[in-house]
Amino acid sequence: MTTDHRQMWTDLGIDLERHDALLNALLPIYEETFLSQKNRPKSMEYFDFVVGDIHGIRVQELRQHAMNGGKVVATYCVFVPEEIVLAADAIPVGLCAGTQFSVPIAEEVLPRNTCALIKSSFGFKLGRICPYVQTSHLIVGETTCDGKKKMFEILGQYQPVYVMEVPNKKTQPSRNLWLSEVIAFKEVIEKLTGNKITEDKLARATKLVNDRRRALQRLYNTRQSRPVPISGKDALLVTQVSFYDDVDRCAQQVNAICDEVEARIAAGEGVFPTNTPRILISGSPMAIPNWKLHHLLETAGAAVVCEESCIGTRAFSELVPENGGTVEEQLRAIADRYMQIHCACFTPNDERLDDIVRLAREYQVDGVVHYNLQFCHTYANEAVKVEKSLAKEGIPLLRIETDYSDEDVGQLRTRVDAFLEMIRR
Amino acid sequence: MTTDHRQMWTDLGIDLERHDALLNALLPIYEETFLSQKNRPKSMEYFDFVVGDIHGIRVQELRQHAMNGGKVVATYCVFVPEEIVLAADAIPVGLCAGTQFSVPIAEEVLPRNTCALIKSSFGFKLGRICPYVQTSHLIVGETTCDGKKKMFEILGQYQPVYVMEVPNKKTQPSRNLWLSEVIAFKEVIEKLTGNKITEDKLARATKLVNDRRRALQRLYNTRQSRPVPISGKDALLVTQVSFYDDVDRCAQQVNAICDEVEARIAAGEGVFPTNTPRILISGSPMAIPNWKLHHLLETAGAAVVCEESCIGTRAFSELVPENGGTVEEQLRAIADRYMQIHCACFTPNDERLDDIVRLAREYQVDGVVHYNLQFCHTYANEAVKVEKSLAKEGIPLLRIETDYSDEDVGQLRTRVDAFLEMIRR
Repeated sequence: MTTDHRQMWTDLGIDLERHDALLNALLPIYEETFLSQKNRPKSMEYFDFVVGDIHGIRVQELRQHAMNGGKVVATYCVFVPEEIVLAADAIPVGLCAGTQFSVPIAEEVLPRNTCALIKSSFGFKLGRICPYVQTSHLIVGETTCDGKKKMFEILGQYQPVYVMEVPNKKTQPSRNLWLSEVIAFKEVIEKLTGNKITEDKLARATKLVNDRRRALQRLYNTRQSRPVPISGKDALLVTQVSFYDDVDRCAQQVNAICDEVEARIAAGEGVFPTNTPRILISGSPMAIPNWKLHHLLETAGAAVVCEESCIGTRAFSELVPENGGTVEEQLRAIADRYMQIHCACFTPNDERLDDIVRLAREYQVDGVVHYNLQFCHTYANEAVKVEKSLAKEGIPLLRIETDYSDEDVGQLRTRVDAFLEMIRR
Repeated sequence: MTTDHRQMWTDLGIDLERHDALLNALLPIYEETFLSQKNRPKSMEYFDFVVGDIHGIRVQELRQHAMNGGKVVATYCVFVPEEIVLAADAIPVGLCAGTQFSVPIAEEVLPRNTCALIKSSFGFKLGRICPYVQTSHLIVGETTCDGKKKMFEILGQYQPVYVMEVPNKKTQPSRNLWLSEVIAFKEVIEKLTGNKITEDKLARATKLVNDRRRALQRLYNTRQSRPVPISGKDALLVTQVSFYDDVDRCAQQVNAICDEVEARIAAGEGVFPTNTPRILISGSPMAIPNWKLHHLLETAGAAVVCEESCIGTRAFSELVPENGGTVEEQLRAIADRYMQIHCACFTPNDERLDDIVRLAREYQVDGVVHYNLQFCHTYANEAVKVEKSLAKEGIPLLRIETDYSDEDVGQLRTRVDAFLEMIRR
């Protein structure tokens, strides 16, 4: 696999030695985590292929697009409206990273007390080991947390970065600010691409992104069934891949899985026994290839049936209304939709507490695991409220704070085992 | 001292046992840190008295004000406009806390990976050991960092909290948001106090706060002299006290010190020998009684001659123009002034880099110590830029990351000694 693309990686300025080390480390972990699973949906083959060739064909597509004069726009957050990027015939690609491999590289520059996701992403650029960032013409950041907000300033010394301001409150003046940011972003993208964003193009892009959201909604709905027809690891992987795969193709592939797992549900089949403890994970996002907690839970005898996370329900729960209208009307609808993401960056963000309780019911979970990336202040503080809120509902909660390293795996396994034992009683 | 006020503390719901322990721990530290200094300005006596009776007379004043129907408004940040509070005949009081004593109390609720300032402040409320917070009718928070932003949500479960949204960028739409926040704050304060904020009252309050700012500017200007006429510890203490003392009285007392130290300058006198290495401290704020770094530096043979900090230059460098006008015009002038605080919450915040270099020149410093409270993401990331910026100017820099505990004092002393030795060469 790695041989075909070496010339492309060289052209992109990739540090081949480091990159080989990354891929050589990643693939055995992938095999152990995913391919060892029993009774997987056959349509996961596509996603296995995508991950198996993670820095290959998809990068080639982006590069081909760039060679044809198109632009690639990198993002780190579900607040950056992909509709606008697509409407200007540019390709959005999610850059959030989930590997310990690039963390020490980032620590040469960034404060160590930074969450692993930020360090991993930044290390990808600093270490020149991510062909996606190398292919991107513009990185779009946002102000959802202090760590990212300030990291983007440093990242801007290496590659063009534009930052969107996500407000802190949800008042009308804050919403006005966000709308003006969405409009400004449209202008930035038009300038970058040289393409005018028209009513038609924006409406088409909106439908395209909504179709992928609908496919993911459909997939997540299947996970409400008992027994659950797809593992948490596989569902997480699908969601992770949706951040950088072609939007239309991804929607089709997710729907193909849905066809298959819906048939399983009709036949009363599942991947785990019916009495398997069902877990909702809520909290910080898990960027590819961060499968640590899912793997821990599912090898300990639990099933992860939902992720209340940016790489989970927050990414697709809300659609942009497809009412058409002028570009400005559509931008307003887009701005409104994005303000419905219940991110911990907002104060207050009590809607998220409601979401967690609602999802816990809808997915018939036996317990919630609150997942907190170490040094992520916003989710760590919200965990205090989540704990109260779940206690009131009598839903068991396990609070996990961790990073991308393997150092705490033994300790986490002990805590997970104890939690599952408590649930099973 | 402690006996006179016990009834008042009891009435305020103070945990007397804990409170005794706090004061008993604080006073010997104060004596060792301050009273052991040689050749102090005589006018520091007032500030010694204020600290010696830290939870006494001033609290009594606030309480008397409250008993007369007045309101006390607690704040944690230089972004909350005191002018507005004063114009409604309420008293603003800074609550930021700088003691390790209340940190473990806060950790019972807050994430441990939170900066010591936030934990110490929150612990004061949770542990019922701060009569200032107990006397306050409203706590006003802001969104300058993730840690505080989310802590305020939890604090709101214990006492009324109102949060002002400080934007993340300095664009026109962000400034508009801030202006609307300032206007909304005025309405909140009018509602709280039942007092209408008039043109006259606002103009008078503006002048009052400016007078204190002018006094502090004057004090800091004396520190540009060589030899420096006042120790860094004493100047820091004055700035710290200015956050909770009566605004007018404080200005007078600061001016009294200025009279004295300006006479010293005229006489060529100083507190340290002329060749003492001069240090600018830049970074996270040092709330009372956080004197750790100043004490370390000045007992190691350096003089701290300036603090580029919220408890330092950022608090008073900019005045609100005293042009009068309608309430709305004055509020606009206030909003503009506060947006000139070069806080690391902004992205980008390159004006702060310029400030540091400028202050280093103006105060004739031999080196800069960048002070970072552990887990403070914004200043930790800006330190990367500060380092580059000072290296370009050939100004030596020492980066310190610490908390309120004494655990790292030995290690810090070694680093400070090495830094001063390097400077002296």
